[in-house]
Amino acid sequence: MSDAKAPDPSRRSERSRRAVFDAALALVTETGYARTTVEGIAARAGVGKQTIYRWWPSKAAVLLDAFLDLSARAAAEAGAAPGETELPDSGDLAADLRHVLRATVDELNDPRYDAPTRALAAEGATDPELGARFTAALLEPQLQVFARRIEAARAAGRVDPATDPRIATELLVGPLHHRWLHRTGPLTHAYADALVDHALRGLAPR
Amino acid sequence: MSDAKAPDPSRRSERSRRAVFDAALALVTETGYARTTVEGIAARAGVGKQTIYRWWPSKAAVLLDAFLDLSARAAAEAGAAPGETELPDSGDLAADLRHVLRATVDELNDPRYDAPTRALAAEGATDPELGARFTAALLEPQLQVFARRIEAARAAGRVDPATDPRIATELLVGPLHHRWLHRTGPLTHAYADALVDHALRGLAPR
Repeated sequence: MSDAKAPDPSRRSERSRRAVFDAALALVTETGYARTTVEGIAARAGVGKQTIYRWWPSKAAVLLDAFLDLSARAAAEAGAAPGETELPDSGDLAADLRHVLRATVDELNDPRYDAPTRALAAEGATDPELGARFTAALLEPQLQVFARRIEAARAAGRVDPATDPRIATELLVGPLHHRWLHRTGPLTHAYADALVDHALRGLAPR
Repeated sequence: MSDAKAPDPSRRSERSRRAVFDAALALVTETGYARTTVEGIAARAGVGKQTIYRWWPSKAAVLLDAFLDLSARAAAEAGAAPGETELPDSGDLAADLRHVLRATVDELNDPRYDAPTRALAAEGATDPELGARFTAALLEPQLQVFARRIEAARAAGRVDPATDPRIATELLVGPLHHRWLHRTGPLTHAYADALVDHALRGLAPR
């Protein structure tokens, strides 16, 4: 079977899907969510508008799938197996959390992820419907992955039994996103480590 | 001296300034930062465009002052004296932090503050210059107020000596803003209390 034969339709679909995602992410980065249109995405991707509407009902649906795909690729680059949705569990909670927060720092410092993620976060902040979809599809699953890891550590006696896994998750993820979004300080591995250290030790004297 | 005499020019200025702020906050809430113009603010405030340009060099400058004024009014409503910039220090760090984070929850749940704050946060997320001004003028002073209170507690031996006051501040403020911005859960006094409790105790077993 050589590549010179009739093109494989599923491969062609995959190429179009990838072109649509790339165009959508580029446009939302360059012009913002509000000014990105299905027509503009189609033109930049070199596909017909009908092709987009065959697969997605709306601009928001295209962009959300593009972000999910981007996020899956980021996870794969960080070494996660395809479809892997759990945090590592080496038995050392601090080490596992440092590992994951350092990977998050790397992702947020990467312009390929930074710009479109800002655009979607900004749009979701002022558009409640898009914000709810963004949170449900992307953010909530990430938070639950952290909460499950902390719950397992609590069950194993490695975390204070009074810990609420959801609050503990937000203690780790919230500051990182806040510093990233508002650029209130450098986003480094040392910062990720300090966050884990403070969240585990707490502020009260021992 | 009766009010029927010639109008007091400084009082008239104050009325115009207030009208400009109200118009700016209403417009940015209704149409977003990008579509808010100096012309639109002037028309809604019932003042000339020249009046605005006499006091402020740009749209961003008007909006930033309107936000600073809004924030000062919110602080006054929360019981702070005018110009007061320090956290209460009753000697009980947990109680003082609960008090302040509960007031922040009330403010973020108030539509008068929620909508314009979202608009500015969203714009700052994608516009680095505006974001830097927003952070420098509004966010950074708030973070430093927390950091000074935690530093005082550390000096008094009420906080673990290994605590970095800045990281500790972000541990308290970051999750609250993250939950507010992305609507990942209810913003309640109980949540504020749980955050303080977890940040002080830490996750590690004692």
